[in-house]
Amino acid sequence: MARIRLGMVGGGNEAFIGGVHRIAARLDDRYELLAGALSSTPERAQASGAALGLPRIYDDFKQMAIREARLKNGIEAVSIVTPNHMHYPVAREFIKRGIHVICDKPLTSTLADAKKLVKAAESADALFILTHNYTGYPMVRQAREMVADGEIGKIRVVQVEYPQDWLTEAQDFKQAAWRTDPERSGAGGSTGDIGTHAHNLARFITGLEVESLAADLDAFVQGRRVDDNGHVMLRFEGGAKGMLWCSQVAPGNENALRIRVYGDKGGLEWAQEDPNYLWHTPLGAPKRLITRNGAGAGEAAARMSRVPPGHPEGYLEGFANIYAEAADAIEARRDGRAPGADVLYPTILDGLRGMEFIDACVRSSARNAAWVKL
Amino acid sequence: MARIRLGMVGGGNEAFIGGVHRIAARLDDRYELLAGALSSTPERAQASGAALGLPRIYDDFKQMAIREARLKNGIEAVSIVTPNHMHYPVAREFIKRGIHVICDKPLTSTLADAKKLVKAAESADALFILTHNYTGYPMVRQAREMVADGEIGKIRVVQVEYPQDWLTEAQDFKQAAWRTDPERSGAGGSTGDIGTHAHNLARFITGLEVESLAADLDAFVQGRRVDDNGHVMLRFEGGAKGMLWCSQVAPGNENALRIRVYGDKGGLEWAQEDPNYLWHTPLGAPKRLITRNGAGAGEAAARMSRVPPGHPEGYLEGFANIYAEAADAIEARRDGRAPGADVLYPTILDGLRGMEFIDACVRSSARNAAWVKL
Amino acid sequence: MARIRLGMVGGGNEAFIGGVHRIAARLDDRYELLAGALSSTPERAQASGAALGLPRIYDDFKQMAIREARLKNGIEAVSIVTPNHMHYPVAREFIKRGIHVICDKPLTSTLADAKKLVKAAESADALFILTHNYTGYPMVRQAREMVADGEIGKIRVVQVEYPQDWLTEAQDFKQAAWRTDPERSGAGGSTGDIGTHAHNLARFITGLEVESLAADLDAFVQGRRVDDNGHVMLRFEGGAKGMLWCSQVAPGNENALRIRVYGDKGGLEWAQEDPNYLWHTPLGAPKRLITRNGAGAGEAAARMSRVPPGHPEGYLEGFANIYAEAADAIEARRDGRAPGADVLYPTILDGLRGMEFIDACVRSSARNAAWVKL
Amino acid sequence: MARIRLGMVGGGNEAFIGGVHRIAARLDDRYELLAGALSSTPERAQASGAALGLPRIYDDFKQMAIREARLKNGIEAVSIVTPNHMHYPVAREFIKRGIHVICDKPLTSTLADAKKLVKAAESADALFILTHNYTGYPMVRQAREMVADGEIGKIRVVQVEYPQDWLTEAQDFKQAAWRTDPERSGAGGSTGDIGTHAHNLARFITGLEVESLAADLDAFVQGRRVDDNGHVMLRFEGGAKGMLWCSQVAPGNENALRIRVYGDKGGLEWAQEDPNYLWHTPLGAPKRLITRNGAGAGEAAARMSRVPPGHPEGYLEGFANIYAEAADAIEARRDGRAPGADVLYPTILDGLRGMEFIDACVRSSARNAAWVKL
Repeated sequence: MARIRLGMVGGGNEAFIGGVHRIAARLDDRYELLAGALSSTPERAQASGAALGLPRIYDDFKQMAIREARLKNGIEAVSIVTPNHMHYPVAREFIKRGIHVICDKPLTSTLADAKKLVKAAESADALFILTHNYTGYPMVRQAREMVADGEIGKIRVVQVEYPQDWLTEAQDFKQAAWRTDPERSGAGGSTGDIGTHAHNLARFITGLEVESLAADLDAFVQGRRVDDNGHVMLRFEGGAKGMLWCSQVAPGNENALRIRVYGDKGGLEWAQEDPNYLWHTPLGAPKRLITRNGAGAGEAAARMSRVPPGHPEGYLEGFANIYAEAADAIEARRDGRAPGADVLYPTILDGLRGMEFIDACVRSSARNAAWVKL
Repeated sequence: MARIRLGMVGGGNEAFIGGVHRIAARLDDRYELLAGALSSTPERAQASGAALGLPRIYDDFKQMAIREARLKNGIEAVSIVTPNHMHYPVAREFIKRGIHVICDKPLTSTLADAKKLVKAAESADALFILTHNYTGYPMVRQAREMVADGEIGKIRVVQVEYPQDWLTEAQDFKQAAWRTDPERSGAGGSTGDIGTHAHNLARFITGLEVESLAADLDAFVQGRRVDDNGHVMLRFEGGAKGMLWCSQVAPGNENALRIRVYGDKGGLEWAQEDPNYLWHTPLGAPKRLITRNGAGAGEAAARMSRVPPGHPEGYLEGFANIYAEAADAIEARRDGRAPGADVLYPTILDGLRGMEFIDACVRSSARNAAWVKL
Repeated sequence: MARIRLGMVGGGNEAFIGGVHRIAARLDDRYELLAGALSSTPERAQASGAALGLPRIYDDFKQMAIREARLKNGIEAVSIVTPNHMHYPVAREFIKRGIHVICDKPLTSTLADAKKLVKAAESADALFILTHNYTGYPMVRQAREMVADGEIGKIRVVQVEYPQDWLTEAQDFKQAAWRTDPERSGAGGSTGDIGTHAHNLARFITGLEVESLAADLDAFVQGRRVDDNGHVMLRFEGGAKGMLWCSQVAPGNENALRIRVYGDKGGLEWAQEDPNYLWHTPLGAPKRLITRNGAGAGEAAARMSRVPPGHPEGYLEGFANIYAEAADAIEARRDGRAPGADVLYPTILDGLRGMEFIDACVRSSARNAAWVKL
Repeated sequence: MARIRLGMVGGGNEAFIGGVHRIAARLDDRYELLAGALSSTPERAQASGAALGLPRIYDDFKQMAIREARLKNGIEAVSIVTPNHMHYPVAREFIKRGIHVICDKPLTSTLADAKKLVKAAESADALFILTHNYTGYPMVRQAREMVADGEIGKIRVVQVEYPQDWLTEAQDFKQAAWRTDPERSGAGGSTGDIGTHAHNLARFITGLEVESLAADLDAFVQGRRVDDNGHVMLRFEGGAKGMLWCSQVAPGNENALRIRVYGDKGGLEWAQEDPNYLWHTPLGAPKRLITRNGAGAGEAAARMSRVPPGHPEGYLEGFANIYAEAADAIEARRDGRAPGADVLYPTILDGLRGMEFIDACVRSSARNAAWVKL
């Protein structure tokens, strides 16, 4: 099978997430990175592209979309790794030309943009993959499968959290600057950057949508223009209740995304920093520690795993799993067939749900943490 | 120093907590259990008292209070370990006769009773100790001391939780029966039984009062008349925010009380099931694991500790520490002096705060989890 | 049932282990401490006895043995908590007068003394209980029961270790002084003080005796006269193999006694510092975490446990369990009946095995860690 | 910089380790896999090569070495991922033609072959990199750096172990078959397959060589022709002592490689299954948990790390780090310069040490675990 011809927008020198996408695309050798507009200034776009040895370097993304669409062997897919406010304008240009989009989260910087992008995607002949990468971890797949199989019964309680500490004090380096600027990042600070990951993970594992929420958001660091801590109570369809905590001011927490789901027959607990383990707590029996590819792990996890149990896989492998799923879908599209039923990736509608989540958090908090519907 | 003459009300055969109080009182050999009205029926009160070899056995608590107060060497203190609704009537009889009260939590079954009891205590010549036992753990003392010493800076976020799983299904054995009966337990279910512990622990460590809260309470098990899961957002005086989760329907959780406190200079994390450890997370430095009596642990913890580091102490020792503090206070009272400045125990006012917490949770939840003041 | 009349030899002011024995005896209210010769000098013996409010204080242990044996209600049992070299002379005086002995470990300071004491005990009408206290932990009982029930199959490998760090540097305070003096402690340093605990724990859980060993002992701290680190390879009867590590010079280890046992059907793992957990690793299934009194824990653990699951028990409770077993045995002897089949405590023969272990380690190490038989 | 032209010998269909090497080579985009002789039978070599889309497929390794050496842009390096007994004949052919070798461990199947290969390498103009991959983990680098910087003082004790459970019962699938066949694997079973990893890791972190050892090896599974459990006592140059345990019959252990090193000022503890953490235990201070790229981690770890702290890296990234170091060395060789002083990879001499370790274990065990020199 020929490798998928890939382009990238954003992800120049300093950008952490661009490098992650490139490794993720490369890990399984199913993509070939051929073109890029890696920066918003032509000079840096050229320099970054040259540094990577890209065959085709563009000064700007629109030029890139137009030309690649016309090339005989132009890119089939583009990775968008810009700050949030650029997701919409960039994605629109590619998707309308039939180039598949693999876009970093959150979907856009405003809910309005998100809705426009959904509309654009509906009329386009291209796939849209959102890299809510944590859904690519094998043991997250395992958890989802166990919930779907009824192993923990009817879900009652969902506790999800994503604390960090890197914004405990005021910061102005590049990664921090745009993430704390509402013009570029969106109205949500911690809610947008990491709260959406927590929200999406809860939806992914439980299969339940949040119907309403009450959010108490704070900007603890003086002068910060977006929230750096969010306390959110959740009500899911069907009656389950949840709490979501996201924070960038919790010292000692690096990327401590963690979810616990409890049903009437058992529970499941997973933590991103130790991702090869899943606790299963069946009611009335000892806790069981299921390991990636180990005894008790099922098909959904095995599909997403590359090495034997006890050899840890991490963040990059989880991210690469989203690219692998995207590759399955893109290859199926090439062939005019449906992808396998087990192929799972976050879609543009998941992105829309995330934007609705941010929007609801901000609205609720502005109204003294009143309950608002999503 | 002569041992303190102690009586007990409640705590007959089946009652778990009565036995705990007796061990706690015995551990350091500073109390002598001499009298009791251990059950609400005379036959069982006699049988339970005889089984323990009590010198003086009473059919009912009022008779006991009257007679002991008149005896030359009657009891100096009484432990009250009845269901919650009896705390007030029992405590009133002893306290007004100058007999110190060591009472299980929550203070009463209603806020009205709590207020009456506070009034009674104010005019009485007796101490009132509430066994919020988790404040007796050495590493909880360590945490409180570190907060007071400014080691984590100004507090911003408090995450506290107390999940259990023993009421995941409907239960009707004795311990469950009264705890799920609002007449005997009070309006709060999980909020009253364990949520108050979480609330008190947060107050104890941070030194901050909760000003208002929004609570979403549920009774997930069909037919249950009190909450078995509580999601609560907290606002503390001075601007700190918090989340409190209590649950009796979270499979795999036994007594998983856990608190995390984050300030602008660092954080602290402690879990009841592994109580000999305290994580300290100074901003910008590696996490430190402080152990009971180990390097880095201070005076406040050392006072409360009996064996060298690496030899775990547990629930009974923590409980006994409350009795030891009470003994210090009672002995000081005997001698007409003030107890040492480091003597700390939960007071009747802590109990009142707990009842206000339960009341606020129930009021808030009834109003769709609106914010209410405590 | 009348409380057992108890005396104590050793355990004056500074001694850590005397206080532990007293709490252990008191915890379940089955003993009454009535007499003591708590120090080797009359003045300190008097002062220590008075400080504890002992009814009968003796200047020396022999006087105490003689007089107590003649008293109508003299002590029925004596706790011996002296330095090791005094165990034999003290125990001999009591046991030959029919007073039961509860003796700290190791049994004696020399193998010769141990054999003489065994002989003395054989002809005496008294019980001998050795406080290898770690066998009192509920989850150690659970492990032993699971091994006996065949849950891990035929045992192949035993890994046991007991590292500490308190002698990483030269020390001369009292606890360190006698433990590093071969005249008082015996020929083994870390091997005697903690290696014997590891050895006994392995025997207790597996039910297997060590047939031969090869030991490489070191005294890393300059001038130290006994070993402070021991590396030992073990061969058990029936073909199982093991490693034992004891160390007092391993920074970061407090009392990190830990055992792992592997059979052809599964494994078990337990650590003293987190004693309420037992890992069970059945071959071909996820690991299971069994908790004290939790789901999956059996009768042998439940007998030894006082509080519900999730409320941790610790070192003192484990120690008290040995006293509780001793009380069962002593009461049965009073009544002229056999104790229950489930009553288990370390005996004088376990003590002899421990002394043979120390002796074998020292002999082996002196011969360049050659294999020696026990 | 042009990518390094790479070939591969071994690593066809079923082979786990071949795929790992390919991902490791690809991760940082510094190699291009151009040629291969992936199987020992021409048919399978052709099929496996075609499946990977290799430009140049060879029926056998000798043919490949000859032709590639003659090509103008033939491979610069070859990865050897065959069973152990083929390492020597394959490596010899490439190395003598100036093609760098990246070889899986252990170096060979016999000590004699190892010595011949060392001789061949000495006279060859090519690099030899041995993939003792665990030395590529960032926190292993961190540990080595801390030891070298004197942070734990003079080393006294080294405890290293590598237990697995996959050979607890007899197995005959391909991976198991050759590893338990002394003709293909060598005289060591668990000692060769995983014991050498443990031995090498101890050497790498401490900078100390093992001078002598005593090994008690077993084949617990009936009919097994090589050891499946090894207990080894170690004596290091300079007086440090150690224990090494390797096992393939320890249920519940997947790849539980773990090392603990104790000096007179502190200790270090690292476990392969949770590789992003390093415990540092300075004497007299609380334990510190250093995380990959987190506060307190130094340059040596940062060099080997791709993503921010809290985003776990795993086995593949650690393996890729060896390939990255090899790439640095190969590129430097291309340019006629020395690689950076911080470039570190296991060499053929490390491989020789590993073979001496296996040989010593087997010799010692054959002589009743007597001490033998390496």
